[in-house]
Amino acid sequence: MVFLSHWMDISAKVSPAFNFTTSPFLLAQASEASEAQTGPIILAGVLLSLVVIYLSSKLIGEFCARINLPPVLGELIGGVIVGVSALNLLVFPEGGSNGTDAFIIKFLESTAGLSPELAPSVADAISEIISVLSEIGVIILLFEIGLESDLAELIRVGPQAAVVAVVGVAVPFAAGTAGLIALFGVPTVPAIFAGAALTATSIGITAKVLAEIQQLSSKEGQIIIGAAVLDDILGIIVLAVVASLAKTGEIQISNIVYLIVGAAVFLIGSILLGRFLSPYFVALVDRMQTRGQLLITSLIFVFVLSYIGAVIQLEAILGAFAAGLVLAETEKQKELEEQVLPIADMLVPIFFVVVGAKTDVSVLNPFDPNNREGLIMATFLVVVAILGKTVTGLTVFGQPGINRLAIGVGMVPRGEVGLVFAGVGSSLEILSKPLEAAIIVMVILTTFLAPPLLRLVFQKPTEATEAVQ
Amino acid sequence: MVFLSHWMDISAKVSPAFNFTTSPFLLAQASEASEAQTGPIILAGVLLSLVVIYLSSKLIGEFCARINLPPVLGELIGGVIVGVSALNLLVFPEGGSNGTDAFIIKFLESTAGLSPELAPSVADAISEIISVLSEIGVIILLFEIGLESDLAELIRVGPQAAVVAVVGVAVPFAAGTAGLIALFGVPTVPAIFAGAALTATSIGITAKVLAEIQQLSSKEGQIIIGAAVLDDILGIIVLAVVASLAKTGEIQISNIVYLIVGAAVFLIGSILLGRFLSPYFVALVDRMQTRGQLLITSLIFVFVLSYIGAVIQLEAILGAFAAGLVLAETEKQKELEEQVLPIADMLVPIFFVVVGAKTDVSVLNPFDPNNREGLIMATFLVVVAILGKTVTGLTVFGQPGINRLAIGVGMVPRGEVGLVFAGVGSSLEILSKPLEAAIIVMVILTTFLAPPLLRLVFQKPTEATEAVQ
Repeated sequence: MVFLSHWMDISAKVSPAFNFTTSPFLLAQASEASEAQTGPIILAGVLLSLVVIYLSSKLIGEFCARINLPPVLGELIGGVIVGVSALNLLVFPEGGSNGTDAFIIKFLESTAGLSPELAPSVADAISEIISVLSEIGVIILLFEIGLESDLAELIRVGPQAAVVAVVGVAVPFAAGTAGLIALFGVPTVPAIFAGAALTATSIGITAKVLAEIQQLSSKEGQIIIGAAVLDDILGIIVLAVVASLAKTGEIQISNIVYLIVGAAVFLIGSILLGRFLSPYFVALVDRMQTRGQLLITSLIFVFVLSYIGAVIQLEAILGAFAAGLVLAETEKQKELEEQVLPIADMLVPIFFVVVGAKTDVSVLNPFDPNNREGLIMATFLVVVAILGKTVTGLTVFGQPGINRLAIGVGMVPRGEVGLVFAGVGSSLEILSKPLEAAIIVMVILTTFLAPPLLRLVFQKPTEATEAVQ
Repeated sequence: MVFLSHWMDISAKVSPAFNFTTSPFLLAQASEASEAQTGPIILAGVLLSLVVIYLSSKLIGEFCARINLPPVLGELIGGVIVGVSALNLLVFPEGGSNGTDAFIIKFLESTAGLSPELAPSVADAISEIISVLSEIGVIILLFEIGLESDLAELIRVGPQAAVVAVVGVAVPFAAGTAGLIALFGVPTVPAIFAGAALTATSIGITAKVLAEIQQLSSKEGQIIIGAAVLDDILGIIVLAVVASLAKTGEIQISNIVYLIVGAAVFLIGSILLGRFLSPYFVALVDRMQTRGQLLITSLIFVFVLSYIGAVIQLEAILGAFAAGLVLAETEKQKELEEQVLPIADMLVPIFFVVVGAKTDVSVLNPFDPNNREGLIMATFLVVVAILGKTVTGLTVFGQPGINRLAIGVGMVPRGEVGLVFAGVGSSLEILSKPLEAAIIVMVILTTFLAPPLLRLVFQKPTEATEAVQ
């Protein structure tokens, strides 16, 4: 560090006439004066953010691995530590400020000559770039999950997955809404909204934990993945319904029909079309001569489906998952999986750290009197959230000997999807402060508890089997 | 496409009350209204840009591979075709407009419900994100080059590389400046500036071609890489000198000393420090238990050195190259190289396509009378640029039987570094329009001619050897 700070000093002493912007390569992208001033600093800020993200994900991830907790939990907690709740290292406008008080901006101001006037726009750009990188990260994660899934097995467990998904939406929604009205006297519309927030399932977190404990291709794993994908679609529909209810007081049937038909046609259509086209895909890749032919051709497919998924009001990650499913059926699956692995290693941690970094955990503080009413409602919501999803395992039929508890627990984490409900509710101004805080607490606890719980319930059958032997 | 456009129609018909922004996942990052409106569209635009970049790089790259031209030339030409000069598919403000007339913005307006008012800020964000991705691409490229280089061999050929670099700066600079003054009556300061633009070497393009023809670790390859790295540093110094000359009419010695000392301390220091720390690095990686431990630990090292390289007014890519050199010495080199390969496949094409896309090749049109004066000067500059670098091969001493022509030709491409001189000259308003155009033409031709030329001259010794046997 002596070496570093020494150079920082010299750097600061250089006359302003010859400052950072004259560095040729960094200027390469800039023809406008304003971009010339901020461009290189934005790159420096992004590099620094990635260093912070990787350091926190690995430090806490390794710690979690050592105390037998899932590394992905470490990435989430690492994110919380460097994020808006604690150290405030990374730049995100979610913290209530415009992001310029983040450590990285201060660091850029002292080392890279960032001027305070330019700080807000640089902070904006860095936050935007890291957000998009994290979204590309989750796209790659879902592509990888799809690539490791077995479409035939998914179709085989389809009916069970559908029942799990529907029950996992209906039970928490009904119990949550009724309980909030009956026990806490919450008005109907906010109660319905909070109940809806209980329906989501974060496919990303569950799938990551399943992959970590090598249960992704087990029957339980495939039912969870299938149900989580359906739940994602149901969640979008539920949000559309309650948002339109909250906004207009009525439900627009045409939108619901559009979303359901759109989701079905998109998922089934892209898989059918993909299966039809995949022999041509393999033939094309085999005839290509330049480097990265398989990877780039696959990424084009992934990004096109992600784009379509996004613009038809579904999610980009559903498109990525469908692309993975289709390519998993080709003979290139193994080769592609090996190539996607390091890319996922590089980009996926960005997603989990960013989810943690954007979560404001200060609502969990019981010593703040403002939090108490929310925390009491939160306790109720957490219980409903966990029980309401755990019971779904009981509905699995025709699968004797299956780990029902594992399936139920696999549906528990709400993750980023749950936070969206709180965000939309907040922007529509239909949630009281305590209720909004209660939803956020519910999302945090289900998300952070699910990974260790999931590990625990998946260990059981193995131990039981060992005991029998 | 019928499938796609059908859905686009339906998407357009959906009532504005329930539009794109209600898609839960995409909203996840947004708590502010403005970000909520543009966030998902920016992701969609980035995905679409990547699809365009990958398609063009592979289509033209494959074509080039088939007619025995280097694929990297295909990526540059692919970039020109989709860029500001021709189809204008990608968003870059360099085209003289604010980027909103780019195809991707029009496509987002018609498929993703982007409103014309938001178009400029969305275009800005997409352009910024793609630029940073392309810069991360060239950082990964230089890291990979460093990883494939042999530090001991680089040090062994160091004296030769230094002579090649210095002669390759001095000869084109002197010949270019003198020729412009004597033959074309150009005033002294602009002539010096144009002469300085002749000194640069694009390490990225040369290294990529060398890797493609498996000559990176040959003696010639290592001399070229060593000289190109030194040339990059000399280029930064030359630009600093001529820019301060142009701005103030005098040369600030302190800056030059700072740059030279800084570059030397940074490169030598990071290599020494890296060698000292690398056993601890290997021990640390071996003790880590989570996925991606080697890759993430290495990326932290790469990004930290890149950051330092950038903020001490050198270049991010020099830091990445130094990181690669250090890690190439560890026992993890092979494993790391395999993991970096797919990441480079994914990110490096973005850099070359973006370089091509940002280049306005309309100055090459001889039928435009405005271009003629520039084209005549350009002819002179191109001849000086090629001959001035090619002669450097003759200076290599103590290496009997070495391919001198190949070394000289390897130094020819000016690439993005050359364009920076034109850009800085333009922003300082010291270049006449024809002279600026001439510099751009010189950069384009040396960049685009060098890859095929380099292939040609590297084939010679092999054929000669075969003839002897």
